[in-house]
Amino acid sequence: MRATVLRAGRMVVRDDVEEPRPGPGQVLVGVKACGICGSDLHFAAHGDTMLRLGRDMEGMPPIDADIDLAGDVFMGHEFSAEVLEAGPGTDAPPPGTVVTSLPVLLSGGSVTPIVYSNHVIGGFAERMLLSAPLLLPVPNGLDPRHAALTEPMAVGLHAVNRSAIGRGETALVIGCGPIGIAIIAALRLRGVEHIVASDFSVKRRQLAELMGAHETVDPAEASPFTAGPAVVFEAVGVPGILNDVLRRSPQGTRVIVAGVCMEPDTVLPFFGAAKEISISFVYAYDPAEFAESLRAIADGDIDVAPLITGEVGLDGIAAAFDELADPDRHCKILVTP
Amino acid sequence: MRATVLRAGRMVVRDDVEEPRPGPGQVLVGVKACGICGSDLHFAAHGDTMLRLGRDMEGMPPIDADIDLAGDVFMGHEFSAEVLEAGPGTDAPPPGTVVTSLPVLLSGGSVTPIVYSNHVIGGFAERMLLSAPLLLPVPNGLDPRHAALTEPMAVGLHAVNRSAIGRGETALVIGCGPIGIAIIAALRLRGVEHIVASDFSVKRRQLAELMGAHETVDPAEASPFTAGPAVVFEAVGVPGILNDVLRRSPQGTRVIVAGVCMEPDTVLPFFGAAKEISISFVYAYDPAEFAESLRAIADGDIDVAPLITGEVGLDGIAAAFDELADPDRHCKILVTP
Repeated sequence: MRATVLRAGRMVVRDDVEEPRPGPGQVLVGVKACGICGSDLHFAAHGDTMLRLGRDMEGMPPIDADIDLAGDVFMGHEFSAEVLEAGPGTDAPPPGTVVTSLPVLLSGGSVTPIVYSNHVIGGFAERMLLSAPLLLPVPNGLDPRHAALTEPMAVGLHAVNRSAIGRGETALVIGCGPIGIAIIAALRLRGVEHIVASDFSVKRRQLAELMGAHETVDPAEASPFTAGPAVVFEAVGVPGILNDVLRRSPQGTRVIVAGVCMEPDTVLPFFGAAKEISISFVYAYDPAEFAESLRAIADGDIDVAPLITGEVGLDGIAAAFDELADPDRHCKILVTP
Repeated sequence: MRATVLRAGRMVVRDDVEEPRPGPGQVLVGVKACGICGSDLHFAAHGDTMLRLGRDMEGMPPIDADIDLAGDVFMGHEFSAEVLEAGPGTDAPPPGTVVTSLPVLLSGGSVTPIVYSNHVIGGFAERMLLSAPLLLPVPNGLDPRHAALTEPMAVGLHAVNRSAIGRGETALVIGCGPIGIAIIAALRLRGVEHIVASDFSVKRRQLAELMGAHETVDPAEASPFTAGPAVVFEAVGVPGILNDVLRRSPQGTRVIVAGVCMEPDTVLPFFGAAKEISISFVYAYDPAEFAESLRAIADGDIDVAPLITGEVGLDGIAAAFDELADPDRHCKILVTP
């Protein structure tokens, strides 16, 4: 079977991957579409650092502790797929059903994220295994390429839910990459009446408007912080942004950090203290948010079509990883194996 | 009149300070006691940096923007005092009444913090001005030295109020200097049933127990983060602590940052993200918290006597600033002019 894997920092097509066989409770699916996530790019470039940070972290079970970067790594966690075959004694939708799922594989007693793994195949492959209890049939004849955006849009929904923003509050979204765009869509879904979006890229600002921002700001031209009190969504995730938010935002600002900065970041806590700012780091989503995300896309409440700026096969992933570095060119590239 | 002022980084006694004269709405008071705050020490050592940070900060009115470090700076914001004389047409408690007040001077239309100033005299002086509408008579014949701790104890009360901690939640207080101790007292006041306090200093751990901690930890011996989920109060305020909290605390931890770190601090946002940690920076208190703090001390609900580890006159302030660097020796030194 064909799959594209991370090998020594590059995405490489293999045609000798062993065909996955569904165990009890599992389902073999054919991947219809799988989005490339910013975290995929980051893992490809800085996987060693991410694994080291994961090992250094206490207070939760180790993340991906068993990944060996000397071996091939399967990736792809934003997928839709078609049911091919259920495992032994497994109740599953009939073959041909288009589904999506939380990117998690249940296997006997273990729970493995379908994110980066030497063993568990992700969406950058012809076929993969999913868990029957987690399958969500894609409703309304929704285009499977759109259903693949359930996962990234759920990230936005979760960030907005965690912010507890009220409709009458102003939302300021810093950074209009895929996460910022998902946040804008979710803010709109929640009826927030004043959404300001900030990005240096004109293309991204246009996309932000298309997805529901009421106002956009080019931070090279004007400060995004002059609109008055706002709930700030930090969706850039590079060092320096958080301190800029602390330094410039008004007293009492709630900051939702949704951009995952993987590098050390320096802040001046004095700014946070003097203005009594609160910061909530948010991450991923819960199963209900994932299901709501699919429903909102399928019902037409969120139109994800404008986000899809490219489509490649398994052999186009390596080049797509390079192209995604240019914010003026791409938002989401889908892999259709 | 005598006052001790900050001059070129050192505390210097002057006996030629012009006698303050109360304007309308103001009251001349004789200082009974004034605590030395960690922020006083920091301002003496790093005032230039603090003023620069204040000027760099946007989103709120400038703090202390007009202070000239080339001139003498009056300090002292944790005071009790005796009413001497009311300004023209000013309704005030009778002379001899012992009072405390929010450290703010109302003067015509302007509001000046009594913290650091070239002009507004603070508590490190024989006499100072206060604002009649802000005066709180000290009840129950409370020792004026204890009443002077209203301000630092209000800082702890505010931090605990902002945390919204429930009685059944565990509180973990990192750092048992004056702020940590005030937090412990406030947690106890709010009926929190499990208070864990962490400090390298044995004296400070003993004080933490005396003030209400149910358990103390020497972080050189054991991790304070193994007690399970806790609301974490960061009361150290030096670079590196916040990242340590992010790295080691459990998923979903709420961190209340009460220790004001004035230096750049580096964190790994990844730790915050992966565990969805929230951080609330807290600062100062509101008038109701200040009044409640005085009431709790006067009613005996908070016994501040153990905090007072030293007492000096105006000519002892310079040496006291040096001595306070040693955590095993001092918690709060009072100036009794």
